[in-house]
This record gives sequence, structure tokens and C-alpha cells, in this order.
Amino acid sequence: MAMWGGRFSEPSDDDLRALQDSIDFDRRLYRQDIQGSIAYAKAIAAAGVITADEADTIINGLQQVLEEFANETFELKPGDEDIHTAVERRLTELVGPVGGKLHTGRSRNDQVATDFRLWVIDAIGGVDMLLDQLQRALVEQATAHLDTLLPGYTHLQPAQPITLAHWLMSFFWMLSRDRERLAEAKQRTSVSPLGSGALAGTPLDIDREALAHDLGFASYSQNSLDGVSDRDFVAETLFALALMGTHLSRLAEDIIIYSNPLFGYISLNDRYSTGSSLMPQKRNADPMELARGKAGRLIGHLTGLLTVLKGLPSTYNKDLQEDKEALFDAVDTVEKLLPVVIAVIRTLNVRPEKMRAALDEDMLATDLADYLVHRGMPFRQAHHVAGQAVALASSEGVKLSKLSLDQLRGLSELFAEDVTQVFDFAASVARRNAPGGPAPSAVRQQIEQARTWLAGR
Amino acid sequence: MAMWGGRFSEPSDDDLRALQDSIDFDRRLYRQDIQGSIAYAKAIAAAGVITADEADTIINGLQQVLEEFANETFELKPGDEDIHTAVERRLTELVGPVGGKLHTGRSRNDQVATDFRLWVIDAIGGVDMLLDQLQRALVEQATAHLDTLLPGYTHLQPAQPITLAHWLMSFFWMLSRDRERLAEAKQRTSVSPLGSGALAGTPLDIDREALAHDLGFASYSQNSLDGVSDRDFVAETLFALALMGTHLSRLAEDIIIYSNPLFGYISLNDRYSTGSSLMPQKRNADPMELARGKAGRLIGHLTGLLTVLKGLPSTYNKDLQEDKEALFDAVDTVEKLLPVVIAVIRTLNVRPEKMRAALDEDMLATDLADYLVHRGMPFRQAHHVAGQAVALASSEGVKLSKLSLDQLRGLSELFAEDVTQVFDFAASVARRNAPGGPAPSAVRQQIEQARTWLAGR
Amino acid sequence: MAMWGGRFSEPSDDDLRALQDSIDFDRRLYRQDIQGSIAYAKAIAAAGVITADEADTIINGLQQVLEEFANETFELKPGDEDIHTAVERRLTELVGPVGGKLHTGRSRNDQVATDFRLWVIDAIGGVDMLLDQLQRALVEQATAHLDTLLPGYTHLQPAQPITLAHWLMSFFWMLSRDRERLAEAKQRTSVSPLGSGALAGTPLDIDREALAHDLGFASYSQNSLDGVSDRDFVAETLFALALMGTHLSRLAEDIIIYSNPLFGYISLNDRYSTGSSLMPQKRNADPMELARGKAGRLIGHLTGLLTVLKGLPSTYNKDLQEDKEALFDAVDTVEKLLPVVIAVIRTLNVRPEKMRAALDEDMLATDLADYLVHRGMPFRQAHHVAGQAVALASSEGVKLSKLSLDQLRGLSELFAEDVTQVFDFAASVARRNAPGGPAPSAVRQQIEQARTWLAGR
Amino acid sequence: MAMWGGRFSEPSDDDLRALQDSIDFDRRLYRQDIQGSIAYAKAIAAAGVITADEADTIINGLQQVLEEFANETFELKPGDEDIHTAVERRLTELVGPVGGKLHTGRSRNDQVATDFRLWVIDAIGGVDMLLDQLQRALVEQATAHLDTLLPGYTHLQPAQPITLAHWLMSFFWMLSRDRERLAEAKQRTSVSPLGSGALAGTPLDIDREALAHDLGFASYSQNSLDGVSDRDFVAETLFALALMGTHLSRLAEDIIIYSNPLFGYISLNDRYSTGSSLMPQKRNADPMELARGKAGRLIGHLTGLLTVLKGLPSTYNKDLQEDKEALFDAVDTVEKLLPVVIAVIRTLNVRPEKMRAALDEDMLATDLADYLVHRGMPFRQAHHVAGQAVALASSEGVKLSKLSLDQLRGLSELFAEDVTQVFDFAASVARRNAPGGPAPSAVRQQIEQARTWLAGR
Repeated sequence: MAMWGGRFSEPSDDDLRALQDSIDFDRRLYRQDIQGSIAYAKAIAAAGVITADEADTIINGLQQVLEEFANETFELKPGDEDIHTAVERRLTELVGPVGGKLHTGRSRNDQVATDFRLWVIDAIGGVDMLLDQLQRALVEQATAHLDTLLPGYTHLQPAQPITLAHWLMSFFWMLSRDRERLAEAKQRTSVSPLGSGALAGTPLDIDREALAHDLGFASYSQNSLDGVSDRDFVAETLFALALMGTHLSRLAEDIIIYSNPLFGYISLNDRYSTGSSLMPQKRNADPMELARGKAGRLIGHLTGLLTVLKGLPSTYNKDLQEDKEALFDAVDTVEKLLPVVIAVIRTLNVRPEKMRAALDEDMLATDLADYLVHRGMPFRQAHHVAGQAVALASSEGVKLSKLSLDQLRGLSELFAEDVTQVFDFAASVARRNAPGGPAPSAVRQQIEQARTWLAGR
Repeated sequence: MAMWGGRFSEPSDDDLRALQDSIDFDRRLYRQDIQGSIAYAKAIAAAGVITADEADTIINGLQQVLEEFANETFELKPGDEDIHTAVERRLTELVGPVGGKLHTGRSRNDQVATDFRLWVIDAIGGVDMLLDQLQRALVEQATAHLDTLLPGYTHLQPAQPITLAHWLMSFFWMLSRDRERLAEAKQRTSVSPLGSGALAGTPLDIDREALAHDLGFASYSQNSLDGVSDRDFVAETLFALALMGTHLSRLAEDIIIYSNPLFGYISLNDRYSTGSSLMPQKRNADPMELARGKAGRLIGHLTGLLTVLKGLPSTYNKDLQEDKEALFDAVDTVEKLLPVVIAVIRTLNVRPEKMRAALDEDMLATDLADYLVHRGMPFRQAHHVAGQAVALASSEGVKLSKLSLDQLRGLSELFAEDVTQVFDFAASVARRNAPGGPAPSAVRQQIEQARTWLAGR
Repeated sequence: MAMWGGRFSEPSDDDLRALQDSIDFDRRLYRQDIQGSIAYAKAIAAAGVITADEADTIINGLQQVLEEFANETFELKPGDEDIHTAVERRLTELVGPVGGKLHTGRSRNDQVATDFRLWVIDAIGGVDMLLDQLQRALVEQATAHLDTLLPGYTHLQPAQPITLAHWLMSFFWMLSRDRERLAEAKQRTSVSPLGSGALAGTPLDIDREALAHDLGFASYSQNSLDGVSDRDFVAETLFALALMGTHLSRLAEDIIIYSNPLFGYISLNDRYSTGSSLMPQKRNADPMELARGKAGRLIGHLTGLLTVLKGLPSTYNKDLQEDKEALFDAVDTVEKLLPVVIAVIRTLNVRPEKMRAALDEDMLATDLADYLVHRGMPFRQAHHVAGQAVALASSEGVKLSKLSLDQLRGLSELFAEDVTQVFDFAASVARRNAPGGPAPSAVRQQIEQARTWLAGR
Repeated sequence: MAMWGGRFSEPSDDDLRALQDSIDFDRRLYRQDIQGSIAYAKAIAAAGVITADEADTIINGLQQVLEEFANETFELKPGDEDIHTAVERRLTELVGPVGGKLHTGRSRNDQVATDFRLWVIDAIGGVDMLLDQLQRALVEQATAHLDTLLPGYTHLQPAQPITLAHWLMSFFWMLSRDRERLAEAKQRTSVSPLGSGALAGTPLDIDREALAHDLGFASYSQNSLDGVSDRDFVAETLFALALMGTHLSRLAEDIIIYSNPLFGYISLNDRYSTGSSLMPQKRNADPMELARGKAGRLIGHLTGLLTVLKGLPSTYNKDLQEDKEALFDAVDTVEKLLPVVIAVIRTLNVRPEKMRAALDEDMLATDLADYLVHRGMPFRQAHHVAGQAVALASSEGVKLSKLSLDQLRGLSELFAEDVTQVFDFAASVARRNAPGGPAPSAVRQQIEQARTWLAGR
């Protein structure tokens, strides 16, 4: 018989139990559940609801239950529908009827919200640490590749030369925003709902602030109805992870393309490449494909939770039980994925010569237009003339630099001998040295900014 | 060392294995994998690739592996990254190097697609059977409540009287469309990709049609590139389940509202109700809330998979590994949910007197307008007059039927003594007897149609 | 005052009108609305509710309203909150109070469902025609490129040689499934809800079947509650379009990558390429990027609608008004996108020499393994040996075919002089001639199947 | 010919233009586009790229273009594919070739990102102001209903008595989190990408920091690749709006249910209620249903954008053009919805007597358990006994307070005469006066906190 069964004449149906019991997935909250109960026992003792001795008995019992979980000796029993029931049931076995005093004034509604928030705070901390490592791996590789030139693409078409360091650092800043969002989500998670009861608060004289602090929360909820049903923290964490997932998916897409032999810019270390069951020569960037795919999975979880929340009546409804598996899986996914992405970046095989070989003089057409601008031609016209030069070179089947001065002057009288200076990839990059630009000098500054950012976390 | 490791100098990193290995979830495909391999062994024997004796040896070995899985004696080994590797590894242990001939001309790409399709065909069959039971439960309850009147709502506001049978049957038809969609999805799943190889088909002289039939597929794929990467069947099944989930969520929403004591139209059997850890009097319709919430989960899985597929390059990419967990969970969710919904419908406590009590004469305002229409007033004007009558009754604080004839004639001269006949809920319903209407006579026909539909599946 | 204002003492607030009025987007239903009303006028005349003369007057009036819309002379008035109100208002202006008889026994609930279904049937027809053209364009290009070899990829890594025709045809089959799904969605859309009233059917003696046929519907709804609130047809059409969108996004991704100059396999015709405002040399495959991006938009609309439906109470709720803009935009999106995709395929510049140049002998490693299999080695072992050969060639810095026979025999004694025959791309492809394979002979058959499929629509 | 057409031999196809041109929706960025261009003209003048006179000419021209837009006299021309092209084209018409100098060193990639960020900053400001009003409306109503008792629900089942003020304030806190999220999104939007060029920064000696400040940005982007393709600010704003939408959908769901006559707790003011075209008595809470439905639409837009972003290659791709319509529609949706929700709250008709009548003594069962706890019984046992009391009263068909003392003492000896004090709803609520509880004293404090919060924004 469940702990709520007083008014019921029949036990729950087995199929209902199979649908409803959450012990299979919420048992991973055991530590938070027991931590919450210990703090709660202290709080109701302080409020005079139980004696200090009773509190001690309960707390000792809870610590014993914790050990059983930690040692994997805890045994589930048939009635254990969720982690809260399981812990209380075992507590009462260990300490007798006094265990039944623990739940005074508390409901599973505020209890589960408390447990889950504690778990999420930890989980965000864990993900954040991995993101920190990934950022540092990017900075490290960027530092090694300040002068490595490669084609920069827009629309996956060659655009202008950039440096590998600049490309690597672009992901640094995406992750910095992710970490900011996660930190803000964590802040809003760090609100104790304990004391909200089932929905209508508590008649006990509990010091909610002290209780919140005891559990490490930054504050406590201002409204008990909201306290038991607020799942913003879950949605917000899922969103932060999903958007982070899209960033990784973009990094992954680049790496997958750059690993194709026609590009050949980079390859994954053997330890992070995989082969084929049929084709002996294959060398696939599987982890990057998984990184790309996992973004879909994360977006799915976010959508799912928002849809669950949509249109729910006030306060707690059982639909909210859907919050946990989605976030558990999202965090597990990210915690499995990030170590591999970190290692991929750290061990990336870079082939500067392949990157260099892919630089085409057409990518300097903007520089050619700039040349004309410097000589007084309005940019829009210069852009047009440079476009004609590209078309001419293409129709002549020569490189842009091989157009004769006469041919160029046929397009504009402003061309002079010194136009040859345009055709230097490194110089082109070096000119783009405004803050945020790809020039080695600018990227050096960018890396400084990044290090400052990291130091400030 | 993985079975694809020939060209690699180092084993995979452990973190990569943790990210990538699918054995934890794809081991449930063991039956389909072995079934597919047995058929494949026959096919390559028929094609002369292996001898009949070799085929026998392989098939016997596979059957032994199947038994080990069925008896739960199969032991995973470190290199078993997925079910295909695990089965082949064990097969080779059992039968020696000849086991290495099984994979000739086959790739995990066509193999996994084959296995998963076989699994999906079974899964759709299982879900369909449950939907059939749910439809029958609805028909049964409807048959018992042909004359049970209750308020019909639009916008959750009382609209017109209907019958409980009619309300129940409305869900029958939603489910009938779900079953049609599932059947069509199953048809498109029933296409054998075996023989597509990794992407480029097979050089072996395999009879793909025979192989497809041997496995129970209706046909085989027409293009090997599509064959290895088509996951339409997963998306389509997820969609059919998600839309079915929204239907159940609507049923659930109605039941949740109707179970509120102010309505009190129905209540769930004790075996399907739950209580509260804090509030002794509670009696919640938890399974219906879960039914409502699970729709969100299913929609999330659908969104996730579509997002995974979006923008993928041709043929197989590792991202496709994301297809399985989403569908497994969707099917598990539905298979846990439906038996409870079926039981809830079968054991529903109905309180006709509460429904009857909630019928308000305002709900006959349309009938009042119809009365005027019968006497020649254009409907639009009659609607206006009836609206005025409602407003008058409301301002007078009386029921609509208690307006005096004088009062009514103040609104329109067309009112006469016989207007009192309007105020009869049962008669109002009985008049709405066009096909598809709520009149008992019409619902009786509807139930006949439903029975015919069921018989035709 | 709105047409439903009889019982209200105050007009609607302007902000509410701005939120709620749908005329801005549902006016495009004018043709269907008038078509539906004409048929309804006939039906209630046949049922004796209005006289034949009244019906004629109403129908003539409606035809005049239709002309006003078609000529763009229809003038909206302040009270026209939706297309139904606008048409009825104008009708009554034109024909007098008899216009007020048209709505007898009808509700906007069944009216809007009828209108929208008629619109969707047309829309699916339009999209289907475009898909037919796209399929024919694929077949045409495939026919021209039966022998054009290019690398086939899995994981975007070179896998095995295939033909361009085979690649093109892979999309044909995706679209064939899309068209099947759209046809099935159309079938389920083709159900007349007219006669369902607001929710409780109609008391009029209308021949619903005749009415349905008059409007071109295949059948009529079996339950009036379901009739007014079933939006499965919208969800299903959105799903079919979204999945079709993912197919186009995959085609787009391939074309974008193959258009990168390092691949250079194909380029878009000038008329379908775009440039850059800054970089004169740029030549982007913008329409393909839009094709890829639009898949996201379509998936968003699907998710949005399913979320709207989730958890709604029975029958009509105003939330359902959200069904239209999503589908309108989805259809508009697809109708703008497909003509461009069709033209891109038709005018594709193909560069067989670039494709050929990208074929690498490593892609024949599977053939090398097959060679050993033919000589009796189990495939798993042959795969391993071929992998070693690839690794050896790589470490020696030579092509696979340049390994000496001695070197090969160092890996396996089964290698002999005739191993040189393996290194022929065309022969490799030609061997893969099982149904569904890339061999020109098999693709020729595939194209036949495709033509048969097209002829059968 | 487009402004990028220099190297193209043919103009764009009309179908491509129809697909690709964004002027229809991005023209609403005209103000931001011109504002950005004015600041840019100053910046390149300061950098010596153009003269002060040229800058003046350009700025005057731009102001003239701005006026034309503001006065709605701006005329689109065929080549105006987007707002940037339209403005530059018109500028050049007005000021001659010098207009062609404006785009020097700038790309549409950084230009559109700048424009859109400026627009989003404004839009968030506008939404925030509406949310502020809604919060104040809630506080105002709460202040008026501190002592209005009503049933509090969990699982939509009567749980414990609460106050209307408490219910109203629960939404205040949801909105406070929404406003925090929007403020954070705004902060991350307030980063100037101008100077990022197409992707590779700018060779001009522009003071990016000054330029950013001139435009009101808080900072500028650190990496040009990220600068042109970061759409986090769009995703984040969409998420904040979608989650806010789910909050409104929950408020809406409560109001819809509470407006049903069987509840009758509240009704919407006539100006915010709507009727039916068929049923004269209807009085629907349409705006609340739209509020509920719009959450789905917002979630759809979020999903759509995340899916667009997933898997994109680095830097700008045309897919990113999909960012605008989604956010425009989301903001428009919210800006239409919020004024109505504000008005609904401000003008809500409250019926305290209906709320009071719905309070049932069963809702005091927890208080009954508390009574026993006070007398020393462990809570878990007290919960069980109270459950038995509820069951007993139910089987006897009497209210809980009508059980005789003997009957109660049959369940526990701890019951005494003073048990009658339990059965007082107001006292029960008043006891729940811990911070965040429903007691009038606690809600008064809560309102103080809320006012402080508002004052702090």
C-alpha cells in the first residue's frame, strides 16, 4: 500500500504502477533526497515540531540509508514508487515510527522540487567544468596556429583568407555565451521551494531562509503555488544545453567537411576515428557526426518539456514528472559528448599545407576592390570592377594575379604597377587587424581577452 | 579491437566508446539481428558465396546465440560495441572462422536498417493491438450510455446537450485515423534494405526479392543510397504516435476536468486513482495527467529526430544512430500508457445525475432560435432574438423557460404557447439525428459504423 | 457589433479585435467559403429549410461576392472579423434579410473546418504537381548521367565509387514517399464536416452525403464533436511537408558541398547563383542554403501545431485558430522553394572530370577484400587484410595499385597477378548490379521503375 | 542587376527572387538600417576612408531616405532585394556615386546582424514594458483580494484552501523570471558586430568601440566569424518569449476552467468575452484560449530556429535569413496578446461567493492530520488516520465536521472536543503564514517583495 493510501479501498493496478512509478529514474536523486531530508529534520526540530533527540535519530537513520545507496546495498521493495517513498520506507524500518515524523508539513511536491533543483545545480557545475576545458583546448590550439592560413568560407564558398586560430577562437566565444546562460540558469535554480508544502505552504514555524542556506540555495521561493510547480529551471537548462549543442554541431560540421580528403585540412587522431565493417579504408569522424546529431536530441528534449508545460493548470500536476528523464538524458548526453570533443580538439591533426594550397587568388578580389577604393573609387564601383576582373581571369583561364596590367587597366585606369602587392594572402590577413579580426596581431589580443574571460569565471 | 580496425594503429579512446557504443540500447534488436543474419546466410548460400554446409554451420551457430540471448546467458565482452558486433563475435567463437563469412557483401549500414525495420514492424503491430482494445472499450462504454445526457462544451463553455456515448465515440474516430496512419507507416517500413551494402549495393548475386520475402518484408528498396539512410519510417512512426498522443491528451484533459468535484461527471476507479503524501483526502486522476504529459514527450522525440535528419549529407552518417533511442522510448511510453487508458475507460465510474444536473436551459438557446426559424424568421435574426432572451432571463435572474410568454413576445411576435416544448433536453438531443449527430438513434448508427470499421481491420 | 453579439452589452475591445480577428489571413479562404455556402444553400433548400427561390437569391448573391473578391473590389468593413462574417455581411447587404437564412443550422465551427479542408485539398494538389516535376527533372538528369562516376560517401568520407544517376535517383525515391504521404493526408482531409454544427450536429434534415459530394469531398465525418475539432489533416500535411523539407535539405547539403571548388563536382547555373555585397568573386548556392534552412521552418510549424493541439479540451476551442497561419506559411514556403529546386536540378552544371579526379583507389579496398573472398578467405579476415594493404600503401606513400605483388603477398598468399583487375572504378561499379545498385545496368532498371511509378500516379 | 552582380552573366531567375528576396519582411528594419549606416558613415569618415563632406552628404541623404520611409513615400524598385539594397539604391539616387562609398569595408553580413540586433533590443524593451504592466495588474488585483478564499488545486483536485491574492501573485513571480531572462537576452544582444565585414573583419582603421557606443550597444564582438553568424540572441529571445508564453498558457488554462459556470469563480468582462455564431447564449473566454494556443506558436518558432542553426557550417550561410520572420512573428504575437491579458486581469469579474461555496471540508483533512501531529502522533500515521476519517465521512454521506467525536475516537484516541476548531477555512489559511504561504499576512509581505522587485527594475 502506498504511503498515501488511507482513503483507498484497493491497491493500485500493476499497469498503473508500471506507468507511474518513477523509482527507475529518480533513484539517482537519492543523495539530494537524503540531504534535503536531513536539513528538513533539523528545520522542524528548530521549529519545535520534533525533539532534538528525534531529529538525531532520524538524521542517523538517513545517513545509514545514504550509505546503503552509496554502497549499492539498498534494496528496493515493491511499494517503493519513487525515491522519496523508498527513503522514508527504509528510514522507518531502521528507526521505527519516529521516521514517520519526518514528513510533517512537507509534501512530495516541495520535496521533489528541492531534490531536483539540488541535482540540477550540481549538473550545471559539472557541465560548466567541461566547457571550461573545451575553451582552454581551443585557446591552446589557437595559440599554436596564429599564423596558419586557411580559406575562410561564407556559404561554404571561399571568401577571404583567415587564420586557423581565428576559426578556433570563434567557437570559444560561442561557448562563453553558453557558460553565461548556464550560470544564469543555475542562479535561478538556486531557489529553495522547501516549505511550500503540497501547494499551500506550511503551518509550521520553519525558518525557510535558514533551511535554504543549509542546503546551499541562494534564496527561497516567494510563492508556494509557484514553488511547487515552477519548472523554468529545467526548461532554461535544457535550452542552454540545446543551444550549446547547436554550437557543437556547427563545429562538428566544419570538422567533418575539413576532414574530407578533398579538403584534408585536418584529421582526427586515430583514437577518435572509426572505421567501417565493410570498407577497410574508411576513417570516419564519427564523434563529430554524433556531436552534430546530439544537437537534435537536445532540441527534442527542450521541445518536449515546453510542450508538457504548455496549458497546465496551476500548481502541481502529475505531468510535471516528465521533467526529469528529459534533463537527465540531456545532461548525460552532454557529459558523454564533451570529453570526446575536448580530446578531438586537443589531438587534432592539422595540415597547414593543405589549407595553404586551397587558398585561391579569387579570395583576394575584395582586396583588389580595396586597392581601387584607396585610389578614390567608390566601393560599390570598385566591387563591380573587381568582379569583372574575376570574370575575365576565369574566362581567360588564368589566376587573378596573372591578368596583365593592360587587361586590368581595360577595366579601370586606376590600376597601376603596385597592384601586384594585392596578391599576398598573409598580407591580406595581416591588414584585417581591427579588434575581432583574423590578423595574427588581432587574434593575439583576442586570446588575451579570452584568457581574461576565463580567469574571471 | 573493433571489427573495422585493420588500418588503425591505436584502439578507440574509452570516452569515445562511452559516447559511441550502442550496445546498451540496441541489444534489444538481438532477435531481429539474428533473424536477419539467418536469412542473409541462406541468401549468400543460394548465391554461391558460401556452401550449404557453411550456411548450416552459421545458422546453427546463430540459433545458439539467439538462445543465449533468450535465456539471458549471453555475455557481453569489451569489444561488443553494438548488437551486430556482439552477435558476430559470439558466432565466431561458437563456429570458428567460418563465422567471418557471414558479413560478406553486407555492411552494418544495411544490416542495422534491416534490423530496425523488422523491430518497428513488430512494434507498430503491438501498438495497433492496444489501440484496437481501446477503441473496443470506447464502443462498449458508448453502448451503455446512449441515453446519458450531459452538457456538450465548446470553449469549455456549455454549448448544447449531447450524450455520453457521442462524447466517447468522438475519440474512437481519432484513434481510427491513428491506426490508419500507423498501418501506412508500417507499409512503408516493410521495405527490405538488405543488399544495399554500405551504400553502393552488393556485387553478390543475391536474390533481394526472395531475401525480402524470407524476412517478411513486402518489398525491397530501389536505391542503395536511399536504402541505407532512409529513416522516414522512424519519423513517420514517431509522428503517428505523437499525434495519437495528442488525442489521448485531449481525452485526458476532459477526464481530468470532468473528475473535478464541481463537475463530478465521472471518477476513476480506485485502482487507477492516486492519493497525496500530504493531503489525506486527495484522489487524483494521475494516469490521465501522465497521458496528457506524455504527448509532450512524444512530440519532443519527433522534433528531435526530424532535427537530426535535417541537413545531413547523403547516405549513412553516424547521426542516424540517434534514431533508435527516440523510437524505443516512444514505443515503450505508448505501451505503458495504453493499457492504463484502456482500463480507465473500461472501469470508468459515470454519474449521470451530475451530468444531468449540469444541463442549463441556456444551452437550449439554439433550439429557441430554431423555433423562430421554423416560424419563418431568418436564422441570423432568430439568433439575435434568442440571445436577447438569454440576456433577459439572466437579468431577471430566472431560467430561460421561466420567461413569460409576454416577455418572449416582447422580443418577437412569433413566440406562441408551444414554445414550452423547446425546453426539453432529451428532445433537443433527439432532434440532432443527422448522421454524425448526438441523438441516440444517430449514435447507434455511428456505433454500427465503428463496428464495421473494426471488423474491416 | 459582431454577428454573435445578441447577449452582450458592450462591443469588443479594440485590442481584443487586433488579437482575435483572423480576416487578415483567412481572407484567402474566400473562394472555399463561398463554394461551401453555395452548396449549403442548396442543401438546406433540398431539406425544405429555405425555398428554392430563397436559395437562388442567396446563391446569386454569393456569386456576386465571389466576383468582388476575384476582382479585388471587395471592401472590408470594421465588423468583418473573419472571412465568414465578411461574406455573410456582404451577402446580406446585397440580398437583404434572406441572407440571414444561410447560416441556419450551421456554425462557424463546421464552416471553417469545411473551408480549410477544401483549401488544403487544393494545396496538396499544387504541391504534388511540383513534386512530380522535380521527380521528372531528377529522372531526366539521371538518364543523362548513367555512366558518370563519382565518389560515393558515407560519413562524408570516400566510400565506394557510384554513378551520378544513382545519386540523383536516391532523391527520387524520397520524394515518392513524400507524395504517398501527401496523397494519404489528402484522402483523410477529404472528409466533409459540414453538418456538424457548433459541436452537436444539426436538427435539419440535410443530406450530408450529397452535400459532401457536391463539394468534392470523398466522405463525411462520423461524429460531430470530432468533426468540428479534428485538425489531424493539418498536422499530417505539415508533417508530410516537414519530412519532404528534410529530404530537400539533404539534397541541398550535398549540392552545397559538391559546389565548393575543392569538390567542384557541380555548380549552379548563373541564374540560380548569387554573389556577395562585399566579395566580388563570390558565387553562392543560396537557393540550396534556403532549401536547407526552410526545413527548420517547416519543422517549427509542425511542432507548433502539435503543441497547440496538446491537452485541448474536446470539440472546438479558439486555440484551433492557430492552425491556419502555420499551414499557409508552410505551403507558401514549399511553393516558392520547389520551382527553384526544380530549375536548379534541370540546369545543373555537372563536371564529370572533377568527379573522376576525386576517385581514389582506397575506395576499391572493399573490392580488394572481395577479391580475397572469391579466393576463399572469410570476409572478416579479408576485410582485415585489405585494411592492412591500405595502411601499407599509406605508410609507403603510394597508391593502393602500386603496392607490389610481393608486398601484397606479404599480407596474404591468396593475392596473385590478376589482382590488378581490381583497380578499375568503372568495373567496380558495374559489378554492383543487383537491383537497387549503382551499376549503370541497375540504374537503368531503376529509372524504368521510376517511370512506372510516375505513370501510376 | 543586384549590387553583387559584377561577375555574373545573367540576372537572377524570377522564381529565385521570389524565394530569396527578403524586402517584404525586412523592410521593417529600415530605421535600424539607416541608423546603422549613419553611424558607419561617421566611423569611416573618422578613419579617413571618406571625407567629412562626403560623410555629410551621405548622412543627409540617409536622413532623407528615413523620412521617405517614415512618411510611407518610399518606393520600392525591382532590384530592391532587401532593405539594405533598397536604402543604398535610394541613397545613391539621391546623392550620386558618393553613396557607393558607404559600403566600404562593410558587408551585408555584419550590416544585417547590426540592424537586427538593434531591432531586437527595442523589441525586448517593448515586451518588457508590457510585462511590467501585467505584473502591476496582478499586484493590484491581489491587493484587492487578500482575504478572498478559494480552493487551491493540485492535479485539478481540491487540495487546500488558499486566497485569490496568492493565486494571482503566483503568476507575478513567473513573469519576474521572464523579465530577468529577457533582460539577460537583451544584454547579450547588445553587442555590435559592425566591423566584422563579410567574415574576416575590416582592413579599415575603424574605432569599433566608438561605433558600438554611437549605436547604443554595450560592447562589440570579439571575433568576426562569430560576429556575422551568431544568432544566439534570436534563439535566446525566442526561448524567453516561448517560456513566457507557457506561463500565460497556464494562467489562461486556470481562467478558462474557473470561467466554466460549474466553477463560476470568475468571468471575463463583456469587452473581452465573445459569443457564438450559432449559440446565442455563449460567452467564451476566447482571449484566454488564444493565450493558451499562442504558446504553441511561440514554441514552434523556437524549435524552427534552433533546427535552422543545427549543423550549419561556420560563419554566414543563407539559412540564417530564416531568423527574422520567426522573431518578428513572435514579437508581434506577444505584443498583440499582452495588452489583452493585462486588460482581462484588470477587469476580471470575481465571484468570491462561488469560490467560498466550492470549499469542501475534505480540504481540511491535512489540518485534521496536523491536529493529531500536535498531539504527538507521527505525521505518517496521522495522515493515515485522517484519510480514514475522510473515507468514513464519505461512506456515511456526511461532511467531515459532522463525524461524531465517538466516530473520530474510533480512529484515534487523540481526538478531543477541540477538534471542531479544525473546521474553519479562514483559520486554516491564516495558519499557513510562513514566507511564501497563502495566509493574508504572508501575501501582504509577498506583495511588498513584489513592489520592491518592480521598483528595482
